Amino acid sequence: MYRFTNDYSEGAHPRILQALWETNLEQTLGYGEDPFCHEAAELIKARLGRQDVDIHFIPGGTQTNLIAISAFLRPHEAVIAPVTGHVEVHEAGAIEATGHKVVTAPGKEGKLRPGDIQEVLDFHMDEHMVKPKLVYISNATELGSIYTKGELTELSRFCREHDLLLYVDGARLGSALTAPGNDLTFPELAGLVDAFYIGGTKNGALIGEALVICTDHLKEDFRFHIKQKGALLAKGRLLGLQFKELFRDDLFFQLAERANRLAARIQGALEELGCQFLVHSPTNLIFPILPNSIIAQLQKDYDFLIWQKVDGEHTAVRLATSWACPEEVVDRFILRVRELFQNR
Amino acid sequence: MYRFTNDYSEGAHPRILQALWETNLEQTLGYGEDPFCHEAAELIKARLGRQDVDIHFIPGGTQTNLIAISAFLRPHEAVIAPVTGHVEVHEAGAIEATGHKVVTAPGKEGKLRPGDIQEVLDFHMDEHMVKPKLVYISNATELGSIYTKGELTELSRFCREHDLLLYVDGARLGSALTAPGNDLTFPELAGLVDAFYIGGTKNGALIGEALVICTDHLKEDFRFHIKQKGALLAKGRLLGLQFKELFRDDLFFQLAERANRLAARIQGALEELGCQFLVHSPTNLIFPILPNSIIAQLQKDYDFLIWQKVDGEHTAVRLATSWACPEEVVDRFILRVRELFQNR
Amino acid sequence: MYRFTNDYSEGAHPRILQALWETNLEQTLGYGEDPFCHEAAELIKARLGRQDVDIHFIPGGTQTNLIAISAFLRPHEAVIAPVTGHVEVHEAGAIEATGHKVVTAPGKEGKLRPGDIQEVLDFHMDEHMVKPKLVYISNATELGSIYTKGELTELSRFCREHDLLLYVDGARLGSALTAPGNDLTFPELAGLVDAFYIGGTKNGALIGEALVICTDHLKEDFRFHIKQKGALLAKGRLLGLQFKELFRDDLFFQLAERANRLAARIQGALEELGCQFLVHSPTNLIFPILPNSIIAQLQKDYDFLIWQKVDGEHTAVRLATSWACPEEVVDRFILRVRELFQNR
Amino acid sequence: MYRFTNDYSEGAHPRILQALWETNLEQTLGYGEDPFCHEAAELIKARLGRQDVDIHFIPGGTQTNLIAISAFLRPHEAVIAPVTGHVEVHEAGAIEATGHKVVTAPGKEGKLRPGDIQEVLDFHMDEHMVKPKLVYISNATELGSIYTKGELTELSRFCREHDLLLYVDGARLGSALTAPGNDLTFPELAGLVDAFYIGGTKNGALIGEALVICTDHLKEDFRFHIKQKGALLAKGRLLGLQFKELFRDDLFFQLAERANRLAARIQGALEELGCQFLVHSPTNLIFPILPNSIIAQLQKDYDFLIWQKVDGEHTAVRLATSWACPEEVVDRFILRVRELFQNR
Repeated sequence: MYRFTNDYSEGAHPRILQALWETNLEQTLGYGEDPFCHEAAELIKARLGRQDVDIHFIPGGTQTNLIAISAFLRPHEAVIAPVTGHVEVHEAGAIEATGHKVVTAPGKEGKLRPGDIQEVLDFHMDEHMVKPKLVYISNATELGSIYTKGELTELSRFCREHDLLLYVDGARLGSALTAPGNDLTFPELAGLVDAFYIGGTKNGALIGEALVICTDHLKEDFRFHIKQKGALLAKGRLLGLQFKELFRDDLFFQLAERANRLAARIQGALEELGCQFLVHSPTNLIFPILPNSIIAQLQKDYDFLIWQKVDGEHTAVRLATSWACPEEVVDRFILRVRELFQNR
Repeated sequence: MYRFTNDYSEGAHPRILQALWETNLEQTLGYGEDPFCHEAAELIKARLGRQDVDIHFIPGGTQTNLIAISAFLRPHEAVIAPVTGHVEVHEAGAIEATGHKVVTAPGKEGKLRPGDIQEVLDFHMDEHMVKPKLVYISNATELGSIYTKGELTELSRFCREHDLLLYVDGARLGSALTAPGNDLTFPELAGLVDAFYIGGTKNGALIGEALVICTDHLKEDFRFHIKQKGALLAKGRLLGLQFKELFRDDLFFQLAERANRLAARIQGALEELGCQFLVHSPTNLIFPILPNSIIAQLQKDYDFLIWQKVDGEHTAVRLATSWACPEEVVDRFILRVRELFQNR
Repeated sequence: MYRFTNDYSEGAHPRILQALWETNLEQTLGYGEDPFCHEAAELIKARLGRQDVDIHFIPGGTQTNLIAISAFLRPHEAVIAPVTGHVEVHEAGAIEATGHKVVTAPGKEGKLRPGDIQEVLDFHMDEHMVKPKLVYISNATELGSIYTKGELTELSRFCREHDLLLYVDGARLGSALTAPGNDLTFPELAGLVDAFYIGGTKNGALIGEALVICTDHLKEDFRFHIKQKGALLAKGRLLGLQFKELFRDDLFFQLAERANRLAARIQGALEELGCQFLVHSPTNLIFPILPNSIIAQLQKDYDFLIWQKVDGEHTAVRLATSWACPEEVVDRFILRVRELFQNR
Repeated sequence: MYRFTNDYSEGAHPRILQALWETNLEQTLGYGEDPFCHEAAELIKARLGRQDVDIHFIPGGTQTNLIAISAFLRPHEAVIAPVTGHVEVHEAGAIEATGHKVVTAPGKEGKLRPGDIQEVLDFHMDEHMVKPKLVYISNATELGSIYTKGELTELSRFCREHDLLLYVDGARLGSALTAPGNDLTFPELAGLVDAFYIGGTKNGALIGEALVICTDHLKEDFRFHIKQKGALLAKGRLLGLQFKELFRDDLFFQLAERANRLAARIQGALEELGCQFLVHSPTNLIFPILPNSIIAQLQKDYDFLIWQKVDGEHTAVRLATSWACPEEVVDRFILRVRELFQNR
């Protein structure tokens, strides 16, 4: 049984474990004030080509979202998210638990456009309603799609014109930035948004996300919020060390690119077999629509998510590839799918 | 420079890193539903000699406290804690951020007694005040002291008679249960309280605490709360694996016992030199009162916390030993202290 | 200028002011423990034909909703509301500010049906999402529609089968229960739901709603929640006295019936003129679709809400009648509308 | 039986009821946008001699405190209050329910001094603790004492130097400003603090407090917060009308001065009898220490609060006078006390 269920089924990239071994008995300060965290932050700043950002390492994605959003907003301010957004659907009400409403817009293929936001703003007229203030998007999205430079630029301009904050959930930012067709650079991203996070957990780390705060007035006292929400790890070094390893060369991007490439191979093979997809994804999550009979056969050897019923005979599934997926597994999967399609 | 600053200055016990290596590419389910978490929970249950507890693995101590307390209480209910309690002093208002007041009692040497709680109850008369509902204690306490079996039994009986929940912060539970003079067993502890956590971070793990819920009505839907507060790690295996390693034999208790023993050696040597202590501690945190001149000398080679001014010439400091502290470091430290006292 | 803007444009029914005068210098206990509150609660219980409900008087509707919902739910539990529900749209995120997500279903004409709720339940599968727990409906709805006895019975049965709480926002409960076509009695309502409130503010009181808690386990410690949310008025007598006056005879129902009747007169006159309505309403809020030219003419003498653009030439407006609306005002308004339609 | 229990045992001053009658059928906008609220705000601004304050009318004191404090603070910021402060003791955790810790200082006779605050600041060193940000004081205090102009000026200077907000709970502000020995004017108060409220409920109104926000950056979007916490009354006119009546001449101050004067008469008579007081109070709450036998006798005819046991034979009680207290009641009470003391 091989799991294409998600991109966090394995442990960490071996270089990360190696670094844990080598530094294990070095004594450091706690709570993210160790040299590893400092070095990791410097490496990321160098990649972004700027020093004027604040970087914080936080154990998980839901936690990063809830800390950032609750720190950035006043009590009456709300989040605008696409209906598919992680904060809306899959965080068990984490944002609301900090007191803020999440207002949704339908969006398209997991992405928000200025027009979607404008409709939300038009609907919220006065103090009897919440005040929409922060636009939450994911890149790559929960459906595997990505924002082009043009799309993000337009969104950024709209937000600035309307005094809205723009926040990017980058749980799969590596995948987005290394996807075929992506024309957005890492520094450009940072220049267009108020804050974003760089996802480690889904791209080779054991645990950890790096929150990057770009806008000055959002930086103040941020460590209080991390502590208050229980995310200031005593051994913060665990997070810093991993990001240091991921960013001291191209490892972070190589791992993401590799996962994308493997997904693209599967996608290409399925397209050749005439398969349709729920949404076009250039990243490591793909959503083929398969005949139910083939799904049943595949499930004997592979685990993946059943996503959505399409018609009486077809269902969309989600396949996720990861940095750790062996090339041969993909080879075998493709062979098996071809076989199943031919024997249909 | 050696740090006696705290017990989380190093990485993890080598066996834990070894286990990470060996299992690294095994694919597992996420979010704590992996075999490692299941096995770790079974090992802990076996140690407790009972199956009727729920066990959840959570990244950090502040987070465990805030999740448990906010899940257990209704909005108008409050926590009773000693003035030195971690939830009162060192969690940046984490409990209050979930909506609950922390009411304090002076306690003694970091511990609460029934009389302390009775005074709080007497003061809270009606619905114009919060309703005290959960008693928070730490074992070992923030001052290194521990609860005897008699003390905890008395507290437990009082709480049950007054319909109060009893919760134990076990950030240093290993130290408490292996301290000289401790007469409380691990299963007895579980039998006396409603919930407690077993601290991994400060006893050899990279990260992680194991929350044990003993009382049935507190168990329902608990994973929702972990998720909502951002603590349901995608790679929950990281937590399970460590507790599996700590509890598959006596490692957890051996590490704690070792740290205690090293602290006792230092304590003994200082006593011989006529040194007083702020509080009697049988665990790995000790609080000697030293002449300021000696502190200044020691700081050239050692890092530790300046705890409290005692008089114009003396200050209490906090020394923490850990599972990772080399025996020779303690030898050298004792020699150095003797030398300083003699040359005074 | 006459305001059909809402049903809270005037002060209170004269009998209420009279009662304030007559009792003004009587000294009473504070915080709702005065004889007026007790008598008012007894009168309402008598009307309901049962003693086993708890009744609390609370200044406003948003406040009643937020206190009840936050007291009834655990942190991970969510509200299901129709998209038009007051808690979703017009409470500035009051429910979310207490930590709970509001999940919406489209509903129909402002009402929820079991099928709407079933879809919400089907979508919420595990602890990565909130747990829907309380169904919020309004009767009369924000669109003026009402639940029949059959509809509410079906909803109640569904909720009980699915372990959901059923809560009714009765800001305009008087209007609902006295509407033509209503077949639901006041005691029947109480028998079908877990809690509801009786709206005073929009039916002749200066201020005040009466929350009725029918289900035993929701009653415990409720006054703590009222106090904590700032709604336990020092002079709680102000609320009790008004409900005593409204319920010591049929005044509450007479005032609501009167407002309904006046709205029905306007509705009938508009129907005769061939006017369409956005939704069928038997209560005191009606939503005629009028030609924009006629709206512009009416606005010279009347104030009302512009509700929704229908097409390039027509707009739906909201007209509200109240207990205080003089019969002659309605006569004149109808004459004016006829004149405008004839001169088109 | 006459109640000296508190200053909210009666209804409202007759002029307020009169104004309710006279304006009852005037139609107005809702939610505090009516002419009465506007006029009342203008009258208060005129009294303060400045236009640059924002004024909001809110039903109750606990509600005003929780709305203001939660609007003014970011999530990690805390309140500093004296141990006797209403927000600490008698609001059922209302402030904590909005997410903020209340940190206490002992203070003296209910009042805070710069030194008290300095100690709190010294104790809060880093992000492991909350950040104290808003100083909460009451004037008059819960013990009846008042701040002199010198004391408040010193406190104000300290707060500004330390970037702390200064907030005054004015539930009994009228009593403070009209007390013998008070040297602080109403405009001076406003000039020294960031926000304060003017208590109506305890000084002749049926209900209502007027929050005055003096500092610009605290004013933005404030009505959202009032709405979100359920305090934006549909018939906001009820609040505006009362403050209009209280401030269109000297009524507000006359009522407070009268209550003070009656309390002073009782206090004077008791002093003549050799009675001690728990605290010196120049306002309408006084705290005589009486022999238990006399208390038992008095309780046959009078109701008042038993405050605190002093020794085996004496207890401090709280007597409250109000605007509505008849002069003859005070005469009779004094006679009765004299009689009891003489017959001892």
